[in-house]
Amino acid sequence: MKNTMNQSEMKTSDGSGNKTVGRDVIRPDALEKVRGRARYAADLRRPGMVYAATARSSVASLTGLRVDSEDAERMPGVLRVVTAADIPGSTQVPLIYMDQPFLAIDRVRFHGEAVALVVAETMEQARAAAARVKISGEPGDLVLTPEEALADDAPVIFSPPDGLRDAARNVFKSYRICRGNAREALERSAFVIDREYRTPHQEHAYLEPQGMLAEPMDGGCLHIYGSMQCPFYVQDAVAAILGWPRSRITVIQTATGGAFGGKEDMPSIVAGHAALLAWLTDRPVSLIYDREEDFRAMSKRHPSIVRVIIGADARGHVTAADVFVTLDGGAYATLSPIVLWRSAVHAAGPYNWRDVSIHAQAVATHTVPNGAFRGFGEPQVVFAVESAMDELAQRVGKDPLTFRRDNIFQYETDQTATGQTVTQPSLMEALEKATAAVAWDENYHPPADRPPDMMASPVRGVGCSVSFYGVGLGAGGRKLARAGAYVQVEVDGSVRVFIGNTEMGQGARSVIGQIAAETLSAPFEKIHVGRADTSRVPDSGPTVASRTTVMSGNAVMNACMTIRASLETVAAEQFGCDRDALMATGDGFACRLHPATHMAFADTVSHAAAARLPLASSSWFVSPPTSFEEADGQGHAYMTYVWSANAVAVEIDPGTLQVKILKLAAAHDVGKAINPREVRGQIQGGALQGVGFALSETIAYSGRTPTIGSMPGGRMLNPGFSGYICPTAMDAPDIVPIVLETAYDNGPYGARGIGEPPLIGVAPAVANAVANALGVRVRNLPLCPEHILEAIQKQEIAHE
Amino acid sequence: MKNTMNQSEMKTSDGSGNKTVGRDVIRPDALEKVRGRARYAADLRRPGMVYAATARSSVASLTGLRVDSEDAERMPGVLRVVTAADIPGSTQVPLIYMDQPFLAIDRVRFHGEAVALVVAETMEQARAAAARVKISGEPGDLVLTPEEALADDAPVIFSPPDGLRDAARNVFKSYRICRGNAREALERSAFVIDREYRTPHQEHAYLEPQGMLAEPMDGGCLHIYGSMQCPFYVQDAVAAILGWPRSRITVIQTATGGAFGGKEDMPSIVAGHAALLAWLTDRPVSLIYDREEDFRAMSKRHPSIVRVIIGADARGHVTAADVFVTLDGGAYATLSPIVLWRSAVHAAGPYNWRDVSIHAQAVATHTVPNGAFRGFGEPQVVFAVESAMDELAQRVGKDPLTFRRDNIFQYETDQTATGQTVTQPSLMEALEKATAAVAWDENYHPPADRPPDMMASPVRGVGCSVSFYGVGLGAGGRKLARAGAYVQVEVDGSVRVFIGNTEMGQGARSVIGQIAAETLSAPFEKIHVGRADTSRVPDSGPTVASRTTVMSGNAVMNACMTIRASLETVAAEQFGCDRDALMATGDGFACRLHPATHMAFADTVSHAAAARLPLASSSWFVSPPTSFEEADGQGHAYMTYVWSANAVAVEIDPGTLQVKILKLAAAHDVGKAINPREVRGQIQGGALQGVGFALSETIAYSGRTPTIGSMPGGRMLNPGFSGYICPTAMDAPDIVPIVLETAYDNGPYGARGIGEPPLIGVAPAVANAVANALGVRVRNLPLCPEHILEAIQKQEIAHE
Repeated sequence: MKNTMNQSEMKTSDGSGNKTVGRDVIRPDALEKVRGRARYAADLRRPGMVYAATARSSVASLTGLRVDSEDAERMPGVLRVVTAADIPGSTQVPLIYMDQPFLAIDRVRFHGEAVALVVAETMEQARAAAARVKISGEPGDLVLTPEEALADDAPVIFSPPDGLRDAARNVFKSYRICRGNAREALERSAFVIDREYRTPHQEHAYLEPQGMLAEPMDGGCLHIYGSMQCPFYVQDAVAAILGWPRSRITVIQTATGGAFGGKEDMPSIVAGHAALLAWLTDRPVSLIYDREEDFRAMSKRHPSIVRVIIGADARGHVTAADVFVTLDGGAYATLSPIVLWRSAVHAAGPYNWRDVSIHAQAVATHTVPNGAFRGFGEPQVVFAVESAMDELAQRVGKDPLTFRRDNIFQYETDQTATGQTVTQPSLMEALEKATAAVAWDENYHPPADRPPDMMASPVRGVGCSVSFYGVGLGAGGRKLARAGAYVQVEVDGSVRVFIGNTEMGQGARSVIGQIAAETLSAPFEKIHVGRADTSRVPDSGPTVASRTTVMSGNAVMNACMTIRASLETVAAEQFGCDRDALMATGDGFACRLHPATHMAFADTVSHAAAARLPLASSSWFVSPPTSFEEADGQGHAYMTYVWSANAVAVEIDPGTLQVKILKLAAAHDVGKAINPREVRGQIQGGALQGVGFALSETIAYSGRTPTIGSMPGGRMLNPGFSGYICPTAMDAPDIVPIVLETAYDNGPYGARGIGEPPLIGVAPAVANAVANALGVRVRNLPLCPEHILEAIQKQEIAHE
Repeated sequence: MKNTMNQSEMKTSDGSGNKTVGRDVIRPDALEKVRGRARYAADLRRPGMVYAATARSSVASLTGLRVDSEDAERMPGVLRVVTAADIPGSTQVPLIYMDQPFLAIDRVRFHGEAVALVVAETMEQARAAAARVKISGEPGDLVLTPEEALADDAPVIFSPPDGLRDAARNVFKSYRICRGNAREALERSAFVIDREYRTPHQEHAYLEPQGMLAEPMDGGCLHIYGSMQCPFYVQDAVAAILGWPRSRITVIQTATGGAFGGKEDMPSIVAGHAALLAWLTDRPVSLIYDREEDFRAMSKRHPSIVRVIIGADARGHVTAADVFVTLDGGAYATLSPIVLWRSAVHAAGPYNWRDVSIHAQAVATHTVPNGAFRGFGEPQVVFAVESAMDELAQRVGKDPLTFRRDNIFQYETDQTATGQTVTQPSLMEALEKATAAVAWDENYHPPADRPPDMMASPVRGVGCSVSFYGVGLGAGGRKLARAGAYVQVEVDGSVRVFIGNTEMGQGARSVIGQIAAETLSAPFEKIHVGRADTSRVPDSGPTVASRTTVMSGNAVMNACMTIRASLETVAAEQFGCDRDALMATGDGFACRLHPATHMAFADTVSHAAAARLPLASSSWFVSPPTSFEEADGQGHAYMTYVWSANAVAVEIDPGTLQVKILKLAAAHDVGKAINPREVRGQIQGGALQGVGFALSETIAYSGRTPTIGSMPGGRMLNPGFSGYICPTAMDAPDIVPIVLETAYDNGPYGARGIGEPPLIGVAPAVANAVANALGVRVRNLPLCPEHILEAIQKQEIAHE
């Protein structure tokens, strides 16, 4: 379904095109957030409200689980202690598989797993009582790494559900993408490199921890309010745990203080717990996580091990890629199967391989479940392939920029690893602009062949990376690739817009408001985009994968076009002209034939209302078709791609091995920047999150390298911001956002999306710059002094 | 816009037609009301909520109004005292005219008028402080009756607004309906009677007094929750008083404990006050009326004076009617202009007058404003014309039943007073069935020519009345004659339905749910009709005039038909047949060609969802055209009419003159009884309210006949249920509902409506039965012993 209103039809009086789309607007929720007036989940109060807390396992692997709640139940203010036995509906969280229980049953699979819930009159009482719930059982064997999980004698963490016959033990999912014969092609290649790259956990570090309020309503209904990305997933989960029809469950997103994927599936558990307690107690229940709990129990970015074997011919043209991707899924599958799918589809990078082979698997371990995180499986593979491309360039004897210029997607005949012919590959433009911004030609120097003297003065280098990003859920999430909207123009010309996607800080409300304003020819100030509410718009899929602008944007455009027909009817009648002769002015309509005419938007609405013409519309948008063949991994994986390049200039103090980013240039082709201010903001924010991934962020577990003393294995060692180091505003480098706009035909006003791409290519650009500066290749993130030192030592050993 | 899905297309598997429509269903809100779980406005609590109370004038007419709030402001817990000067937006309530201030400015026009508002930490504190607000000024001349208001030297209460040039002083509105020359025709008539009839105030006596909660929300929005009929009126009022765009104001109806017209326009004032205070204090504000305040300040049924001059020819066929209607509008216009319009259109009754003249006017007095009340101006005129018809029958020498049989609308060539050709006039059937139910032929006796001996044994009599009722707003409210709906089928096959009309006890939710179930071929239990919420459905007009079933019902049907197309697509694909070959089974679909096939509703939905077909739809319904020429009052006044007849058997104790109703038969042609249980309930409830109007209900004012002592004039003397006597359940007579079903082509499944008609014709049937029993005509309601005695005395004087 393609929107039939194209740019030319939207011509405005001054002939300059759009009136609102493409202009910087201030996000409508900015002021209330700055003023502290936005109400987050933890701010909500209800008469009779009670508080919940979660009792969690302090052991990572337990069988024969026993729960003794006697002490907890006697604590002051406690209403009830609840275990899985109290669940009236499904005990399992509904997601891709049904492998994860809402509350542990018989077994515990990770430290921090939810075992029981306590509900009490105050939050302090609930938390104190949760700490007194006695959880015991027989400690089981512990699996903390993918290698251990895949061993022949590994304990079973995950058994394939029925219907996944050929899946291996502890493998959540695997994919194979195969075009040509990569192995043979590599044997024939003049240059080949074969390297393994590793990336760690990354924590979303949203400002607002998880939180939900479940409120019993009259009519046997339940309202769920909270911090989330995906209200329809939450509705699914609450319907499942209670065994209720969805029509009795309304999920309403509250102001959400960041999400980044961490509030895609996880809020389903929080909401399921709150709903269960609300149903059992018939009281409004508030369940708010503290930071440590959120760290321990909520999903992270998948750690990865990616082996890249790539080759080039004698002239320096790439030949074949053979990539093996292993993601550590943690204790439960959550979204691993589709995270892995995105890893697989993008694993070979935007290069013209003749032959490609990609193996990808997601594996279970006794650690926190990993799920969605901005980039969704891409940052891991892009770090690997873009690092490897620099290594191959060096082997070939070309500088990394030239080597990329020679090999990236350039023509509409080029094909991705899945055999999808690319359209509008503006990657070269992105690459040139990003590298120019860091003055590549002046700053690039051929890599030294030895590490520097550690007492010498700071060294500098530049690095770059390219990446592409499939917008939306693609063929892997085809069934969810639809969105609804509801637009209601009030009789005074103010406008309500509802979509099924959420505002979590990314600026969806301003973009959607601009699309509505442009399509209605209304002033932007007239548009009020409401909060996401499952009772207002049909299931529109999750707010993920940079899909909101294209999916909800198109849906809103469709609804507005229906209403615009009413407006044009009265405007044409007023001017005595055909509808074809009307021009949108950005605040109503004029007639091309009589340029002095004008009818303001509010007046047009008022006339249409008096004529009883429809001024409200619901709509539905279904994405353009996609495909993916499980057998060979070939197909039209995504409807469109964002093309991106990052270039980084770094300076390293050889004494401390601290990496300082002097400049980070990030070029992204977003199709159309509906709100350029927000696009730049997304690029800056995503890039900074990429800087954290590149330089400092990692989760440490006891019992995994490095081992710490005699602590039981499988404990997260840095569940908080004193131990987990994110860049702050003070750490932000000079980030230069570069916005390219190659219109996408099926996007609203040509837009593609921007949410996830900015994070993806940062780490390899930094690693490549570090290698350029130091002459040392670091293949495991983060690029912290310890890892750099380790790489220097390895290289010295190799040289000796 | 006529619904294109007709009955035949809805044929079901057993050939019996509808599966849900026409079956008795239990209202979904019954259980929670019985269990005390429904939440009314006064049950709502919010964190930080404060309470409001209203300071009211204890004098009916004041000029030079002064407010001294110093004492009140010093009372404990008081946050603020507010007057009209604090209003940021419009000081006037937006309705037909803008004559009524939200808070009195300079003048007071009735005892109980709102002058100031107090907001305090508790309700008790707010009320105590409101009592301490000092209201003073110069007492003005007092006008307590329409006669006084129309006197040449009457003080001005109401000045016509600009644009109403030719209106007279203190006349809110007047209408003239004229066909032929009634005066001349009456001069030529063999029999003429000329009588004046009077009806008093009637109090709505809803169980739940008025109440609202205004809650400031993030995003600069305000939510209004409360007891109401017309959320869009409330939204208008709040937008006006605050000067805000409507998109920032969301009005949500809470469980509403009765309304009967009393919550049509009045809640606009209550909500406006609460909203003003919420805005000024930035706190949620609860404003709940107590019973006395509600009596004093909220609207009533208009008292009326109706002079009826009607004639018949020598054969007993009616000739002409000349009717003069005067309604006492009270201090402000509120809805008087359109109440009056309904009075005018129906003032001549459903009779074949060749010549008709109707003058109608609504007049201002210094009493509580009168507004909407079930029947909306019709009970007054029907009491008059149906009493007069009995008087004319007696003059002609026919019994009242025969006389009506000879003269009521019977043929599709018959025309109403406005010249509208009637369709499907099933009045004769209604009349025959109603009178048969009271065994008319056995119980009717020619009237005695003298009043009975007051010590004799009880006397009995029967009476009947006919009436017709224009459904919906008609030409008088044409601009509001539209309705929207939103239907969302959830992926599990549960269904949400939203309409713009409210459930106030009349059973709208079950009727709307049945229409949705029938149209979707879904089980009724799957349908959840949500509460009315202005942000979900566009302005759909008020919930009045028995319009909900036709207007919102058609809108829901339209939305469901859109969704049904998706369902039929997958069902046809499943069965391998054309959509034409599908049958609705009431729980999904089957194929006519393969009768064993069946696809349950939930499965059909599940398939449609997987195919990403649209399962939600908004819709819009515009009523069939109506017209009314102000010049001569001719036109197609209403889209359709409900035809009604009442028959009553009474017994009167000549000693006490207490009237006991032995049986009340009420026949109404509702087109189609969607939920017959509710139709019978509506008939019984409406009839009982008519019994109160007939026998006991009236508001007494000091200074108006009868005068009481030296009390200042214009005070309501019986503002509560100890002084205002409504029939209770114990007083309910044997009411026999008779439901006729002559399908209305433009109605959903043929329905017309039923809310208002049951009250309308009761009082004249009782009065006619009393006349039959006693031989005494009582021309002023209620038919209390005092009025009967007065009539007896007058008649005795006449005889002497």
